[in-house]
Amino acid sequence: MIEAVVLLSGGLDSATVLAMARAQGRVCHALSLDYGQRHAAEIAAARRVAHTLGAVEHKVIPIALDAFGGSALTDPRIAVPEGETTGIPVTYVPARNTVFLALALGWAEVLGARELHIGVNALDYSGYPDCRPEYIAAFEHLANLATRAGVEGERFHVHAPLIAMTKAQIIREGVRLGVDYALTVSCYQADAEGRACGRCDSCRLRARGFAEAGVPDPTRYR
Amino acid sequence: MIEAVVLLSGGLDSATVLAMARAQGRVCHALSLDYGQRHAAEIAAARRVAHTLGAVEHKVIPIALDAFGGSALTDPRIAVPEGETTGIPVTYVPARNTVFLALALGWAEVLGARELHIGVNALDYSGYPDCRPEYIAAFEHLANLATRAGVEGERFHVHAPLIAMTKAQIIREGVRLGVDYALTVSCYQADAEGRACGRCDSCRLRARGFAEAGVPDPTRYR
Repeated sequence: MIEAVVLLSGGLDSATVLAMARAQGRVCHALSLDYGQRHAAEIAAARRVAHTLGAVEHKVIPIALDAFGGSALTDPRIAVPEGETTGIPVTYVPARNTVFLALALGWAEVLGARELHIGVNALDYSGYPDCRPEYIAAFEHLANLATRAGVEGERFHVHAPLIAMTKAQIIREGVRLGVDYALTVSCYQADAEGRACGRCDSCRLRARGFAEAGVPDPTRYR
Repeated sequence: MIEAVVLLSGGLDSATVLAMARAQGRVCHALSLDYGQRHAAEIAAARRVAHTLGAVEHKVIPIALDAFGGSALTDPRIAVPEGETTGIPVTYVPARNTVFLALALGWAEVLGARELHIGVNALDYSGYPDCRPEYIAAFEHLANLATRAGVEGERFHVHAPLIAMTKAQIIREGVRLGVDYALTVSCYQADAEGRACGRCDSCRLRARGFAEAGVPDPTRYR
């Protein structure tokens, strides 16, 4: 029985990662971070996804990244862009995936798990630096220097199975594995009931993915 | 004016790092993590140190590493060892410095600071893997892949000025710079008033450092 910590945001990508890890027989410990994000509805979505897709447990850890601000997702004074943007958008949260992977690593070491699964994607994505393959490789290298397990000759592996997939490919794979995407929330500014704006970068990537996959879009828009 | 984020635990080492950074003219933003540690008195000590040594601001961020446990510092069911231990002791907190540096990186990027200062030490230390030079180098590499600033060609630097110093050298340098070590708390199981046990690894390294430096030990023992 191989154990894994799976980072679960409540969005489409990480739900697919959990389904893929379960399909490979992994015993999955799901981890969500309540980081002061605008879209708190995603935590409720993460709970539904963890339960439905068979995680053996689900922890939600608060970490107040809004104490630093600097992102449209953590500072209400910065508006979420709607429509096309260029470069790295203001929805970028500085060091977010590094904080998330660090916490996943800490929990994994305590559990005796040696796999971290994360739903980063470097094709249909918002251009965030901490979603690229070279970043994931650097974190895996760090993980094996940072830990007792690494020093003692064991190896942590960071699995990012979506990294080279299009959004349409991700959705087709999830549908094949029985993921109910109606449970997920991707919108950067979803309302309290998880209804999406349909206009932010995350909504547009998601909607285009369903269209290209030829799968009916189950997203609830407001 | 060069800005820096300085990780401040409330102990002897990080107080010295803050004094060194200030002596080099850095504008210092101090960051402490309230991670569910046994020795909560160290947060009170960090507040005193940040104020006394001239940090321009001090943030204390809660992060519930005790939700994972697995260390004598975060799980009250695991006793803090007293006397000599071999190997990496049970006071090791899985991925602690990775979580701390990740948060420091996030704040630094928001501030526009490009220096992270951390008081790790690989000579008179407890053998923690995330205190070694190769670990610090790997985090610096990661930081420059993880961030917008890194992608845009700026460089983050991780300063670990104590890494090759003995505890006695650290204390002599701090005394030279005017650090009042009576403000600091190193003990892994200090009481609520910050009084030390005198028996844990951290107490013994500290006491030996003062003795070897020929500096009167200002630690309050219980």
